[in-house]
Amino acid sequence: MVEIRKPIQVAEAVERVMNNVHKLGTETLPLEDTYGRVLAAPIIAKHDVPPFDRSPYDGFAIRAEDSAGASGTDRKAFHVIGEIGAGHVADRPLERGESFRIMTGALIPEQADAVVMLEQTVENEGGFTLRKPFETGENISRQGEDMRQGETLIEAGTIIHPGTIALLATFGYAEVCVAKRPIAGVLSTGTELLRVTDELEPGKIRNSNGPMINAQLTRIGIDYKSYGMMEDDLSACTEIVKKALEETDLLITTGGVSVGDYDYLPKIYESLGAEVLFNKVAMRPGSVTTVAVLGNKLLFGLSGNPSACFTGFELFTRPAILSMMGCTAPYMPRIQAKLGDDFKKANPFTRFVRASWSMTNEGIIATPAGFNKSSAVSSIARGNCIIVLPSGTRGFEKGMSVDVLLLGTEQGAECWEL
Amino acid sequence: MVEIRKPIQVAEAVERVMNNVHKLGTETLPLEDTYGRVLAAPIIAKHDVPPFDRSPYDGFAIRAEDSAGASGTDRKAFHVIGEIGAGHVADRPLERGESFRIMTGALIPEQADAVVMLEQTVENEGGFTLRKPFETGENISRQGEDMRQGETLIEAGTIIHPGTIALLATFGYAEVCVAKRPIAGVLSTGTELLRVTDELEPGKIRNSNGPMINAQLTRIGIDYKSYGMMEDDLSACTEIVKKALEETDLLITTGGVSVGDYDYLPKIYESLGAEVLFNKVAMRPGSVTTVAVLGNKLLFGLSGNPSACFTGFELFTRPAILSMMGCTAPYMPRIQAKLGDDFKKANPFTRFVRASWSMTNEGIIATPAGFNKSSAVSSIARGNCIIVLPSGTRGFEKGMSVDVLLLGTEQGAECWEL
Repeated sequence: MVEIRKPIQVAEAVERVMNNVHKLGTETLPLEDTYGRVLAAPIIAKHDVPPFDRSPYDGFAIRAEDSAGASGTDRKAFHVIGEIGAGHVADRPLERGESFRIMTGALIPEQADAVVMLEQTVENEGGFTLRKPFETGENISRQGEDMRQGETLIEAGTIIHPGTIALLATFGYAEVCVAKRPIAGVLSTGTELLRVTDELEPGKIRNSNGPMINAQLTRIGIDYKSYGMMEDDLSACTEIVKKALEETDLLITTGGVSVGDYDYLPKIYESLGAEVLFNKVAMRPGSVTTVAVLGNKLLFGLSGNPSACFTGFELFTRPAILSMMGCTAPYMPRIQAKLGDDFKKANPFTRFVRASWSMTNEGIIATPAGFNKSSAVSSIARGNCIIVLPSGTRGFEKGMSVDVLLLGTEQGAECWEL
Repeated sequence: MVEIRKPIQVAEAVERVMNNVHKLGTETLPLEDTYGRVLAAPIIAKHDVPPFDRSPYDGFAIRAEDSAGASGTDRKAFHVIGEIGAGHVADRPLERGESFRIMTGALIPEQADAVVMLEQTVENEGGFTLRKPFETGENISRQGEDMRQGETLIEAGTIIHPGTIALLATFGYAEVCVAKRPIAGVLSTGTELLRVTDELEPGKIRNSNGPMINAQLTRIGIDYKSYGMMEDDLSACTEIVKKALEETDLLITTGGVSVGDYDYLPKIYESLGAEVLFNKVAMRPGSVTTVAVLGNKLLFGLSGNPSACFTGFELFTRPAILSMMGCTAPYMPRIQAKLGDDFKKANPFTRFVRASWSMTNEGIIATPAGFNKSSAVSSIARGNCIIVLPSGTRGFEKGMSVDVLLLGTEQGAECWEL
């Protein structure tokens, strides 16, 4: 007797997973180790930026009032009394008719309230002349014009990127409070699986899901423990799953989640007392994707079919992991694009099509990356995005507007076009 | 006397840099260490995928001809002679009226040419009956339907992502020939600079460019040697630049590239005999960006202003580094979006505006990320893209279509909307 499973919608499946995420704690790391981590506390401006009025150019600091009335026929002369390099401070205030040579980034001296650019001056003995009047504040970078002390700049839950690190450095965060990263366990199941180093044998294929998932984890900066490959043996599988759950924060398995005689994951979840959140999703590929929870730990039972496995990770495992770290924007970025090819095969389930997007004169075009069955490997390798085709009774035609989920920007553009 | 520099267009500057890239060699790495590396040789299918005809479902393998004429009133009976789990092989060919129970991924037995899904059968003693005829090849995943032996699948020069790794694993590439990665030297110059751990002092700011560039390098997987910070001292700077050029494959400096009295990089390039490719680019921010070449090594003289420094790295340094590894698509991915805010300030130079893009009901909107001067830090931290505004005499209005360069997808979407 075949078990009949009731499929749930993808959005419902995502919600069930996300509702079962348990956040990990926080830790404090040196700033240089925080790239890609999730901020556990907001970044608040510890002082104004710039911290003082400063010169945005190389030039001369003057009192604006001394330039009043300057014109081509009535040039105003200034005496240069010294020089202020960036990082240095003037030794005295300016007085009438005086100026300091001043460098980009240097603190504006007392009494000065404008900066004259070099090219606006004509040199004379001991100084320069001006042919136009300057206003108070002209060419001065004002204290606090970029950020004000006390301002909340970046919220907790944001992934730290290079710009975030510049901000943290600016305020002297030599150490940063970030979310702990989970360690993921990865176990591939299936008697048909060979190791990457093995020669092919009749009826067998090499395990591509394990290395692929390891790399999907690496892409989001997550460490993993690999539990290798298990043949379809219930008791051995159960033991290794138990061990993995003791040693890691979440477990990702591939294969063994369908309703076949050798699909042991459902039996393992049952014997462990794990609650199955769903075991059928209205999606292609990956409808057999199963997610269970045991205590604080999520068990992702991904399909053994490579395209389905890949998609299941990106749709469910990735946002769950990011959310474990408190990330507030854990889902793949979405854009809209024109479909680059007909996709005539209608399906009652939502389809996730491995595809490749690029910018063209007709806008963004996303084209299915070739052979697109659940078992396909080539299309995962060729794709840089996933086209989402809603369920329904009709196919999709070239040129239609479709949703596209971006997979990462490791691969860029071939030409510089701007 | 102020040196007058002649600006060149951004595209010309990019071209000059890219024309001076020297490729590094290759190395062979274990598959599990290749994420983010650049393929040094194409991936060619070593065998068909699937490597044999296999079952895409759990079901029964039959000879299609034995189902001929089957109907609701004339069900055809099949005797089940055994079971083929994935990874196993049938012990004998099928004969008339026989079938094997077969699992997903298992090799189709000899003489069988169709697979019947479980739900299409009615069990009887010793087997099952069918109510419809099957065609030759029905429900069979054909050998080579995904990839054909000898086919070139992925070209050299492609960055390895999780899908690429799945492909490499499939063909047994336990070791992979990839491009060597350069090591970058990073040196921040400026007497105004404090370390991240220092307390603020009058006229000084903390060095944010150094940590930011380190993170920009980390984002593309490149190791760096940090040469810390140098005060504006010509001979000390020259020595450290010499040392860095001996120890690294390219050098990134920040600050010291303008025409001020303390801008020593031009003098250092001259004393080293480096050829300056350009020292003025028609762009804002970062017009002072200077790139020089000495022997095989590029010297990136980025601005000391954080936004200019950030932009200079992404526009010039990043594609040069990727190209050193033979990457054939080294430029930031580009999309078009609607401008989310007026940007009225016209400029004779191309403007690169730190911005944030998101998908909305009105399409993709890219909005400038606040304070956008060359010296800004906040907008780098808040942005996830760069809007490119062409040079000209007019400003830009909200809703206009603009080019947007994507900076990475570390940050995703807050909601699951599909």
